[in-house]
Amino acid sequence: MSNQDPAPAAAPRLVSLPELHALLADFDCIAAMEQAFRAVSEGSIVAPPGGELLFDDPAGDAHIKFGYRQASEHYIVKIIAGFYDNAKLGLPGLGGLVLVLSRRTGVPVAILLDDGWLTNLRTAAAGAVAARYLAPKSVTAIGVLGTGVQARMQVEQLQKVTPCRDLVVWGRSAFNARQYESDMETRGFHVSIAPSPSAVAERANLIVTVTPAKSPLLTKADIRRGTHITAIGADTAEKTELDPAILAAADIVAVDERELALGRGEVGKAIQARVIGSDRLVELGEIVVDPARGRRSESQITVIDLGGTAAQDILMAEAVMIALTQRDRQA
Amino acid sequence: MSNQDPAPAAAPRLVSLPELHALLADFDCIAAMEQAFRAVSEGSIVAPPGGELLFDDPAGDAHIKFGYRQASEHYIVKIIAGFYDNAKLGLPGLGGLVLVLSRRTGVPVAILLDDGWLTNLRTAAAGAVAARYLAPKSVTAIGVLGTGVQARMQVEQLQKVTPCRDLVVWGRSAFNARQYESDMETRGFHVSIAPSPSAVAERANLIVTVTPAKSPLLTKADIRRGTHITAIGADTAEKTELDPAILAAADIVAVDERELALGRGEVGKAIQARVIGSDRLVELGEIVVDPARGRRSESQITVIDLGGTAAQDILMAEAVMIALTQRDRQA
Repeated sequence: MSNQDPAPAAAPRLVSLPELHALLADFDCIAAMEQAFRAVSEGSIVAPPGGELLFDDPAGDAHIKFGYRQASEHYIVKIIAGFYDNAKLGLPGLGGLVLVLSRRTGVPVAILLDDGWLTNLRTAAAGAVAARYLAPKSVTAIGVLGTGVQARMQVEQLQKVTPCRDLVVWGRSAFNARQYESDMETRGFHVSIAPSPSAVAERANLIVTVTPAKSPLLTKADIRRGTHITAIGADTAEKTELDPAILAAADIVAVDERELALGRGEVGKAIQARVIGSDRLVELGEIVVDPARGRRSESQITVIDLGGTAAQDILMAEAVMIALTQRDRQA
Repeated sequence: MSNQDPAPAAAPRLVSLPELHALLADFDCIAAMEQAFRAVSEGSIVAPPGGELLFDDPAGDAHIKFGYRQASEHYIVKIIAGFYDNAKLGLPGLGGLVLVLSRRTGVPVAILLDDGWLTNLRTAAAGAVAARYLAPKSVTAIGVLGTGVQARMQVEQLQKVTPCRDLVVWGRSAFNARQYESDMETRGFHVSIAPSPSAVAERANLIVTVTPAKSPLLTKADIRRGTHITAIGADTAEKTELDPAILAAADIVAVDERELALGRGEVGKAIQARVIGSDRLVELGEIVVDPARGRRSESQITVIDLGGTAAQDILMAEAVMIALTQRDRQA
């Protein structure tokens, strides 16, 4: 390498997972996600469609999201990978990290070694935002399809927006379902295990789907009037948890980001199959700005498809950077 | 965060720029780039189109590339950002880093803090690969449009494929051109400064364009028979260094990756303007496999548009990982 090159930029700051936990201990993630969805709908986020890598043997997928908020000093690149065999290896199911770079000079400022935790947290908080505006006032039980980390975190975040502590859970693995029951009972929930997804929908009117399913788990006939469904799992083109007929029957079909939703997940499938038109969609940020666009009666069926947006990752990284600065000042 | 989560993955290994220099001191980058282009054309690379972020105030752009080689243990995500005011701040013009992650588990394995050096090196070596198959046998002089780091590195790599040590350089800034002259004279080149791009084309028959120009620097009338041009600078939709008529007049129009070239750079512009058809394009990897598809006479005009491919970044990261493993074994 040549001699006259400028000195290398200062090394970026590494932030470990325990540090991230501490930095965000008092963070109001639900409020931040409301801000993120509002920013998406107001157009103050620059975030082109992210990238995706699919892997075989072992099966996994990696998602790369990047972008910045117009008013921010930083841009971010987030990598998150899900590998389904990781649990067998004693590794988190999700892996990845968040890079924070300067939008003045391009150089890396911080590397948040979150192992997917920031994504898990922001995804769970998004579910809570959705429930705040779309779930019925009287939640009879929270239904959960899936038994993984996100199935736990969704329910934890929902505590902040509904008093309901009754869970009805279904999982493909009976062992995992019992583990989920035991864990969530410890955390103060009343948990019952359902034999099928439709049995969940019979009892719960706030349902969260958090599985890697590639064919629908719930059909239109399963869904009772007054039910809200937050669909989380379908983050690639091949994954799906809901029969498109459910979306056709719903009074409200919400998404986190209209442009992205057209090409992915439950909404993408339903639109490509011409089961619904794109004019049916409302963005969560539009509902946050004007709650009248959310649920208007206890009998409406509402569905939201949360594929995840770079805006959420940007706001999470901003929160970490703010907390780091505050900690530095106090030190 | 919940108690029963698996332990965080081991922290990724950080590799500094001086370490990268040492690890790749004996690396045959030109051979590796031939392998990369061959892999592109053979289809053994998984690399969807990368992402791009544009910034104003200060002006800059960030490119995110990601992918993996089918046979590799890793996938990579590379971020490279160019901010034109960085030199004033004493920072490298390019910033960024390369993430190496496991394609078995998704977790980050290494973070190569290269400040864009790996990209610079692989870009320069790609220019040398192109010249090996496309430049005339008898190079009268190497013409260089641009006076930055890449304008230096291109010429350094060309030393391995041509005995010519005569440089004709043009730059927008007379000061930078004199600095370039002085630096390259020190390294054993004979340098003359040309008053215009066309004056470069009058004397040189191997021309490398390495500027951030947004309108053509060379027209068809400037280009003599027998000239080869390697166009490097046009890495976004708005940048361009060559009049599309040059591509129309060329006997060979080569690209690093056909699919990407259709939408960007000199070739993308020429195809969108219907000045050339996509059937005119040949991939550098196709030429490496069958050199008869490269230059066939001293009078042909040849052009290659090197926008950069994830395959190059993947092979560079692999070289670093191999060198790291070897160093670990010796330690």
